[in-house]
Amino acid sequence: MTVPTIPGNMKRGRPRSEQVERAILRAAADLLAERGLAAMTIEDVAALAGVGKTSIYRRWSTKGTLALDAFLVDFLAAQPLPDTGSLEGDLIVMLRAWVRTARETPTGRALTELVAQAQSDPELAIAWSERVVGPTRAQHRKVFERAIARGEIPAASDVDVLMDLLFGPAYHRLLHKHLPLSDRFIRRVVAVIVAGAKTGAAAPAS
Amino acid sequence: MTVPTIPGNMKRGRPRSEQVERAILRAAADLLAERGLAAMTIEDVAALAGVGKTSIYRRWSTKGTLALDAFLVDFLAAQPLPDTGSLEGDLIVMLRAWVRTARETPTGRALTELVAQAQSDPELAIAWSERVVGPTRAQHRKVFERAIARGEIPAASDVDVLMDLLFGPAYHRLLHKHLPLSDRFIRRVVAVIVAGAKTGAAAPAS
Repeated sequence: MTVPTIPGNMKRGRPRSEQVERAILRAAADLLAERGLAAMTIEDVAALAGVGKTSIYRRWSTKGTLALDAFLVDFLAAQPLPDTGSLEGDLIVMLRAWVRTARETPTGRALTELVAQAQSDPELAIAWSERVVGPTRAQHRKVFERAIARGEIPAASDVDVLMDLLFGPAYHRLLHKHLPLSDRFIRRVVAVIVAGAKTGAAAPAS
Repeated sequence: MTVPTIPGNMKRGRPRSEQVERAILRAAADLLAERGLAAMTIEDVAALAGVGKTSIYRRWSTKGTLALDAFLVDFLAAQPLPDTGSLEGDLIVMLRAWVRTARETPTGRALTELVAQAQSDPELAIAWSERVVGPTRAQHRKVFERAIARGEIPAASDVDVLMDLLFGPAYHRLLHKHLPLSDRFIRRVVAVIVAGAKTGAAAPAS
């Protein structure tokens, strides 16, 4: 399994600037885990990181986008790119990793808070789409492309729809809390997607 | 002489009280549509409904639960219970109705705001689960039960997972905004679910 490379703007500037940026992100991640997005303030992040508030505002224009970057490092590192040899095996590994992150780590709490916040924060919504959804889906797409290359599912399969079918139900249970994100849920979701995709149902109708 | 107190549950049933309740819900629905949940205040709802704030607080303890009830009437009325004769036909009708509501009506805006608000409002989260998710799923379940009765999908199919597969991807695109809720999306999501369910993939593994 490989861990995805972390996208973003952390490489700019000189070493001192990088250290400051890392300290800010670490402080923001700790505060997010400890008290959540609503109660996190830029003042507290600055105090914990040992920097001035302007050092933060120079890099992030809103609390939401800072929280997003703090979240992103841990979240992407926890999402594997499996290669088990079958689409079903790969999807189970990916969905299990996502569920573990969402249910059992502080990153999971930040995940629901950021999705909620993005509904009323257009800047965060754009950043969420570009920096979380984009890279995550680019990685997941590889698993479906390998399944196509192996001949498991038709080449014309709509991979976007298949990815929505994989993560949509998981987000649904996470946000609506109507039923648990159990391992049985994971296995059945994956079984239906793989069986359906193998029939060609995700490919354009003739 | 003592004045008899009228118990709350009798009072609620009287015509005047029903009128007040309807006026409050109509005012809340109008304000939700006009300015959204964040900008809606109990003061404004009271003024628009022509009632005192206590008339509202006697019935709803928070803005979130009032908004939920205002949302619920329009939302549930817009969700049909189709009977086209096939599971695929029924699911397409249901998902199209949901997408139309979510994309094109003020109710859709309230939908995303309420899901977002429920992430940090435990009382609203419980009300959401009991009053929106519960009744909606009870209705959708009938469509799958008819498909089982017709022999279209195995009797042991996990209907909860199938409902998550139907609405999870739609909520996913609505909340994350990464791709449009197009009619092609609707048809492919349904095609994969139906094809997968017909193979028995949603039933317990032997």
